[in-house]
Amino acid sequence: MLSILEHIHTHEDLVALPDERLPELCAEVRAFLIESLSHTGGHLASNLGTTELSVVLDRVYDPWRDRIVFDVGHQCYTHKLLTGRMAGFERLRHSGGVSGFPKPSESDTDAFIAGHASNSVSVALGMARARTLAGENYDVVAVIGDGALTGGLAYEGLSNAGQSGEPLVVILNDNGMSIRGNVGGMARLLSRMRVRPAYFEFKRRYRETVGKVKPVYNAIHRVKEHVKGAILPANVFDDLGFYYLGPVDGHNIPALESALKWARDMRRPVLLHVITKKGCGYPMAELHPDKYHGVSQYDALTGVLKKSGPTFSMAFGGELENLAAEDKSIVALTAAMADGTGLSGFEKRFPERFFDTGIAEGHTVAMAAGMAKQGAKPVAAIYSSFLQRAYDQLIHDVSLLNLHVVFGVDRAGLVGEDGETHHGVFDVAYLSSVPGMTLWCPASFAETREMLRAALYDCKGPVALRYPRGGEGEYRGSGADVVRVFGDGKDAAIVVYGTMINEALAASRILAAEGVNVKIIKLGRICLLPCDEVFAQLETDTLVVAEEVCAAGCVGEKLLAQAAQRGMALRARLLNLGDGIVGQGTTQELRHERGIDAEAIVSAVKGVIAHER
Amino acid sequence: MLSILEHIHTHEDLVALPDERLPELCAEVRAFLIESLSHTGGHLASNLGTTELSVVLDRVYDPWRDRIVFDVGHQCYTHKLLTGRMAGFERLRHSGGVSGFPKPSESDTDAFIAGHASNSVSVALGMARARTLAGENYDVVAVIGDGALTGGLAYEGLSNAGQSGEPLVVILNDNGMSIRGNVGGMARLLSRMRVRPAYFEFKRRYRETVGKVKPVYNAIHRVKEHVKGAILPANVFDDLGFYYLGPVDGHNIPALESALKWARDMRRPVLLHVITKKGCGYPMAELHPDKYHGVSQYDALTGVLKKSGPTFSMAFGGELENLAAEDKSIVALTAAMADGTGLSGFEKRFPERFFDTGIAEGHTVAMAAGMAKQGAKPVAAIYSSFLQRAYDQLIHDVSLLNLHVVFGVDRAGLVGEDGETHHGVFDVAYLSSVPGMTLWCPASFAETREMLRAALYDCKGPVALRYPRGGEGEYRGSGADVVRVFGDGKDAAIVVYGTMINEALAASRILAAEGVNVKIIKLGRICLLPCDEVFAQLETDTLVVAEEVCAAGCVGEKLLAQAAQRGMALRARLLNLGDGIVGQGTTQELRHERGIDAEAIVSAVKGVIAHER
Repeated sequence: MLSILEHIHTHEDLVALPDERLPELCAEVRAFLIESLSHTGGHLASNLGTTELSVVLDRVYDPWRDRIVFDVGHQCYTHKLLTGRMAGFERLRHSGGVSGFPKPSESDTDAFIAGHASNSVSVALGMARARTLAGENYDVVAVIGDGALTGGLAYEGLSNAGQSGEPLVVILNDNGMSIRGNVGGMARLLSRMRVRPAYFEFKRRYRETVGKVKPVYNAIHRVKEHVKGAILPANVFDDLGFYYLGPVDGHNIPALESALKWARDMRRPVLLHVITKKGCGYPMAELHPDKYHGVSQYDALTGVLKKSGPTFSMAFGGELENLAAEDKSIVALTAAMADGTGLSGFEKRFPERFFDTGIAEGHTVAMAAGMAKQGAKPVAAIYSSFLQRAYDQLIHDVSLLNLHVVFGVDRAGLVGEDGETHHGVFDVAYLSSVPGMTLWCPASFAETREMLRAALYDCKGPVALRYPRGGEGEYRGSGADVVRVFGDGKDAAIVVYGTMINEALAASRILAAEGVNVKIIKLGRICLLPCDEVFAQLETDTLVVAEEVCAAGCVGEKLLAQAAQRGMALRARLLNLGDGIVGQGTTQELRHERGIDAEAIVSAVKGVIAHER
Repeated sequence: MLSILEHIHTHEDLVALPDERLPELCAEVRAFLIESLSHTGGHLASNLGTTELSVVLDRVYDPWRDRIVFDVGHQCYTHKLLTGRMAGFERLRHSGGVSGFPKPSESDTDAFIAGHASNSVSVALGMARARTLAGENYDVVAVIGDGALTGGLAYEGLSNAGQSGEPLVVILNDNGMSIRGNVGGMARLLSRMRVRPAYFEFKRRYRETVGKVKPVYNAIHRVKEHVKGAILPANVFDDLGFYYLGPVDGHNIPALESALKWARDMRRPVLLHVITKKGCGYPMAELHPDKYHGVSQYDALTGVLKKSGPTFSMAFGGELENLAAEDKSIVALTAAMADGTGLSGFEKRFPERFFDTGIAEGHTVAMAAGMAKQGAKPVAAIYSSFLQRAYDQLIHDVSLLNLHVVFGVDRAGLVGEDGETHHGVFDVAYLSSVPGMTLWCPASFAETREMLRAALYDCKGPVALRYPRGGEGEYRGSGADVVRVFGDGKDAAIVVYGTMINEALAASRILAAEGVNVKIIKLGRICLLPCDEVFAQLETDTLVVAEEVCAAGCVGEKLLAQAAQRGMALRARLLNLGDGIVGQGTTQELRHERGIDAEAIVSAVKGVIAHER
């Protein structure tokens, strides 16, 4: 069925393919992705939008030699198919399968890691400079979406790259709505540029005719630049030192290939503006590109998505909406993740108090600080791994003035299929170091609602709630309690927070069946850490602390250090994610693999007891 | 002598001052600053450059009511003089004196904290939005330098603010060389705009004449905009949604006042481009604005600067130069701090391998990662408190691929007079959480050189050296030893790293005189933490860990947690900076005040021994 795609394994295979068969290849890629992702889930719409672009990229460039740096990276599926990884799609984003993001350890043709937006130009510039200094001559190209362009890091990269003079191509993959209608002045600018006359076509034809006579071409070059200035006013990319080419239709293979070759051969910083249609070729995804951005399973034929259950994000967003109805000073902020963080309801109901900054976490946090300084109650919902990008603003703008900003730290802990770039496993370390930070860890929807209320009305200064991707487990308790205790076993204590309570409860049942009786100490707040309350609950000196975060700066470390300073001798085992680099798989698989699930808690408890007795 | 300045205490005083006396006021401000800073040190050149701008700001706006948000903030001295804080300049930047940065706790007229670049537009936008939502009508203005404009956060803020429609003025204080010739496409763009015809003058005169007849003004508005488009091509600020006004001469008070009033009254996002001369009115500072940017003491009459001694930065930069002479793959990166990080020698000698990115730490780190991926040996020297801005890039771009990038973490620990925004006291916490990070802590110039060599040639993955502002103390040891031991006292052990060794050595002498014999365990590397080596050296269970960092994530915490997991019962005191918020003063004053100096170590050792016996 996939008669062309199955025979593409190398750059040479792709180059050898006659031009007229390329549309067929793209059709095969799309058919494969639609069918394959219906089973595994994945980033569908963006890959359907970049099929032609990927084919052209891997033809114009040799990905084994040249460096193609994808921004964010979830648009890399076609590239993976073209570089010998079709078999890995059976378990795409699952353990043992290919990653949903570029991953150099998976293939040399993945030039760099990706997952966090806006870094591609910086990385590509670094590569280009290293190449030039080493006297090598491979090509470097960055592929960045219009959404990622809202991030300041992209601007820093463009500003430096434009001035560098380095041969380097930045492809702006402009689908006009990364994830969900992006925002800010840049988006407005791009929308103006999109509808401009096809200046690129003019230039291409010009080069094909006049350009063939080299001396004439050179002589007339200055005039041409003046013509350009007249019909295409300077834009921000020109201002930053790039040669702007485009816009070009991202689904027109010959136009794309010719433009990309031209860009490559200019040997200077070039920005090629490519217009693509997210979800292209799959009607449901074209109509609702945001719904089909990242999907779980769906019916390939009809596009009907598998229903997913309620989530912590929804609990958070829903309660914020309730509170905002009573309290006019509440404002909500998000960085391009209104749907993901459960805030789209808030947005609809209180549009004037809802602020989507685009992918600009640093700005979101600094703006929230300004709002709080003037008396508003800002609540910013940001994914844990993306809030890393605002660490300085948390300290400098929020904490030093002890401003009351509430953070919804979504996707905290293991996120599952998105893998190592997206796990929220550093937040306990970095949030604990922010002066004056209060950190709540709801373990159920009810607690999420109650702790949000506590964060808004019972706390001062910076406050964060960290909650996981997905839904709640067995534990459905309620209350914004700093410490809750389950069981009264005297053999050992298990300290947990957040949804790790479910592992602890399961472990305690297994242990009870074996005659070991434990007490579970569940922390609702981990910063300030309620050491007195925890220590008061200990019946023995035997303790296991199980956490879904990296070891450095974890709660167990802090508890043990406090105990030592009080002269308490404890027998303790700390279960956590070590250095914090964790691969892809379901959360449950990963908890098991990394030894923080019920089974691991059971054996840790038995181990620490055995060692003591 | 300061017959005008001494009588300005309120906004009303300033407004009441006749226009013709303003130049005299500015002259008095300059004379005061030149004389006063010659004793205290401070940011001289930038304040001489913004004297007129500050006077006009505090006349056009009421700083008690309106919100003036300074970016970086070291240009706030004139504003402080005009808002009743002249007396505090006697101890400017010292304990008990005024801060060298805006500080709301010092005066209500300091709208926000500042110190880290590029946040002002975001903060001001947050304030403007809070104002509008609350139905209030004060004005909000951000004052940002061209240097801070190289930071992506400023772009995020501008992009959002331009689109917001909020009444908000951004003053671009363009001296063409913040700190030291800034870089990137934006700088090039500004330099082009600077020499444009005085379009602003045209507009001002136009409004003064035609503009007075309101209907005519309105009718002709569209035409005017077309004229603007013709004589002033759209620039990036227009693109982002701002109304661009300028450039205007920042030392021409009437022009500045009229432009600022116009900007204020437009009730939309306006960018006012003001051209200032850094060091204006003090010949030495005009000639060498970078040398007079941040000064210690100098001779007010001649401008001759007090010589300062050798620094850790020089040791680092000098050795990097030596190594780069032998190793062509070494490249050096800095974020607008070539002089501050001791890299100006490297820049002169190896310009093609030196990269100053401007104030863009995230980009610096991501670019370094790209370089390392392609085989170069990047060394990035960045101040500790500024590297906070690249926390995500450290994890995502460098660490996940285990790339060998070396970081010179300059200004680690207490920095003294710059105060709370600049102390490098969070780095141990945040760097320790970066997977695979190696962290060296040189305590002398010799160790700095040797550990840099070790970082480049004996380590893999991300490596950082953290070293303080200023010079070395009593300790002049050499070697890149993971652990070094001093003394063989059996009464207690003192664990330190970096220049805290000097406090430990002093403490051990005081203790010895009192008959208490300690062993000092000095850590050269704190990440990976050499727990085995430390524990092997303990003669008793009595331990004091003294550190110049915040408590969360400190080495003492990690050591005690490790000991507890090994079942070791220790008697320990951890001396550190608590939440990490520390004011201004000399480093020695601050060490004393916060209880981490020799004296504090002595009493901690005695306390922990007494408690045990």
